[in-house]
Formats: sequence, C-alpha cells, structure tokens
Amino acid sequence: MARNPNLPPSERRLTRIRYVLARRQKDLTLVLSNIHDPHNVSAIYRSCDAFGVHKVHLHYTDTAFPTLGRKSSGSARKWVETVRHKDRDALAAALREAGSYVIATGFSETARPLTDFDFTKPTAIIFGNEHDGVEDELKEIAHAEAYIPMMGMVQSLNVSVAAAVTLFEAWRQRNEAGMYDTPSFPPEELAALEAAWCKR
Amino acid sequence: MARNPNLPPSERRLTRIRYVLARRQKDLTLVLSNIHDPHNVSAIYRSCDAFGVHKVHLHYTDTAFPTLGRKSSGSARKWVETVRHKDRDALAAALREAGSYVIATGFSETARPLTDFDFTKPTAIIFGNEHDGVEDELKEIAHAEAYIPMMGMVQSLNVSVAAAVTLFEAWRQRNEAGMYDTPSFPPEELAALEAAWCKR
Repeated sequence: MARNPNLPPSERRLTRIRYVLARRQKDLTLVLSNIHDPHNVSAIYRSCDAFGVHKVHLHYTDTAFPTLGRKSSGSARKWVETVRHKDRDALAAALREAGSYVIATGFSETARPLTDFDFTKPTAIIFGNEHDGVEDELKEIAHAEAYIPMMGMVQSLNVSVAAAVTLFEAWRQRNEAGMYDTPSFPPEELAALEAAWCKR
Repeated sequence: MARNPNLPPSERRLTRIRYVLARRQKDLTLVLSNIHDPHNVSAIYRSCDAFGVHKVHLHYTDTAFPTLGRKSSGSARKWVETVRHKDRDALAAALREAGSYVIATGFSETARPLTDFDFTKPTAIIFGNEHDGVEDELKEIAHAEAYIPMMGMVQSLNVSVAAAVTLFEAWRQRNEAGMYDTPSFPPEELAALEAAWCKR
C-alpha cells in the first residue's frame, strides 16, 4: 500500500532515510544505454540503490525509455534519481559538467580489467545494450574502457550482473577510502534531499 | 548447432579449454539450495563459469532439481560440474570431505560483511531460496554467515546478483594471491578433464 505523503514518516523510516542519504555517492554514476529488457534495468537500479549511487543517466536513442515495474526494481527506482538523454551530446555535456571520468564497458584491445581503475575519483560507467554492448558513438566520449575479468568457456555475463559486480568494486574501493563515512552532499543539499525523500 | 563429439576440437577450442581448465578453482564452490527460478540458477552458472568455479552443489529438498535452459545459462551448465543432494547430511559430508570452510549467506546478527572473509581458503558458499534465504537447517552446517554490504532503501539483491558479487570478491582475493596463475588440479587430473571436455 502506498504511504500517505501528507503524513510525516515514522521515526524508523526517517532514520533509514538519513542513513541512506549520508552514504549516497554524489560522484558515482551509471549510464544505461539502450538496455532493452526492463528486468535488467530494474535489477541495475536495485544495485545502484544498494551500493549508494545517487543518480543514473538513461541514454535511449533507438527505443523508448524503459518503464520500470515496481516488482522487479523493488521500488529502487524511487530512491535513485534518473536523468534522461535522447542524444549523446546532452549526455556528454552532463558528464563533463559533473567532472566525471567516463568508463565504457567493453572488450576492445585497449580495455583494462575493472580492478585497474580508481573508482574513488568522480566516475561514470557506461553499460550498453544486451547484444551489442556500448555503441561506438558512446565509446568516443569515454576516457577509458573496462572489462570484468572472466576466465570461463562462456565469455559473457548478463548486463545486470556486470553492473552489480562493477558497483561492488567501486563500493569496495570507496569504502576502504572512507567515502561512505561522511556525506558526499553538503548539509543544505542533504536537508533538501531529506525533505523530498520524506514525501515519497 | 551441436558439435560432433567424434571430431577432435579445433585448435582454437583446445587452446580455450586448456586456458579455462588451468584457471578452474578446485576448492571454491557454491551450494544452491532450493532456488526456484531457473533463470536465477542459470545466471549463477554463468558467473561460476566466468570466475572459475569448477563444481556446484545443488541442494533441493522441497522441489525438483532445476532444468537449465541453454539460452539463459549460455551453455555454462556444460562447463560447470553439478553434484545433486536431496538431503542436508549428504551435502554436509561432501563439503566436509572437500575440507571446505562453509559460509552461509544471510543477515543474522552474527553475519559479517563479505569483505571480512578469506576466500583463498577452500570455501563453499551457500545461497538459499529467493524468498526465504538459507534455511536454518543448512545454517547449522555453516562455519560462518556472510552478507553483502548494502546501504540503500531497498535491502535486498537478486540471488543471482548476490552470487556474482560474492564470486567476484572471491576471484579478486584469489587473483591477488596468484591462485589463477597455476592450475589447482594436479597434471593427471587436468589431462583427464581436458579429454572429457574435448568431447563436449
């Protein structure tokens, strides 16, 4: 049942909201580009929520933006901000403005393993379509390419699995660096977010 | 199209088989217990294949063993050995015989974060049903309980995502320790496996 947004949140919920917002990473984001299966998109939102990603960029140029079912995202879409882009240049401008180091996922010859990267820097990681991966046009706006080390007979992972593993590695590095110990948002921004979240 | 098993494998395939077998981890295994959705089971097999798990234990007591579609497992089930157990004691005996440190996944008060564990030791990690997690009876045969650190509003991850993240952490530790640099199987066992895999 939906909560009545005119009522203040319970003490328990408020504590949770504060706990989560204090750990949201302002400068760690994903770009989901033309990922068709809404289950994959929903699963990625759950991982974003779990590992503290504040905002996700959707880049959909060859299909409509995904509609996320409440069931498979477990309502995570409610707690992760979404920015929609219909073209590459708008996306590139947003990432540049945020000062992000942009990593495309893929298997080019110049790609390096995930664990080679420093995820404590402001970072955006691009995940592409299930079949075609990140398109060349998008790779052009990336500073580097990363792959998840795999040593099996089947050389692919589901995109939602790949995103979760990548976010876990980013979390691991940032956690070691103490980046989840102090809020990444300044106090006034945190207060505004808290007020907004309490109404959700 | 299926390969004709009477023909020798191509040079490229043989090279791949040797590469993969040289990295298979004899002493890292998962236990999948009563996981109902075959898509989840298939996705977990893909992660096992990718991160070099040689063998998986299925523990199904309240339902039939899963039938894995070729599509969602991407044929990974062909390259990961499966041992089936219909009761806990058979499973416990197998894990004991392998000398495994047994980790159940869950959120008990005594559970510790994934990154606290030393996955370079012989290890078996138990994943339970999508809704109920690892059942108490199985927790009894575990030495410890591990959870994936999550700091979101939605406190759960899909079981296939949780398994992938766990295997990635195990891979990361083992890779740092050089455990993928030399085969974990003795030469004669490796040769027997190679002969068997060439016929698949």
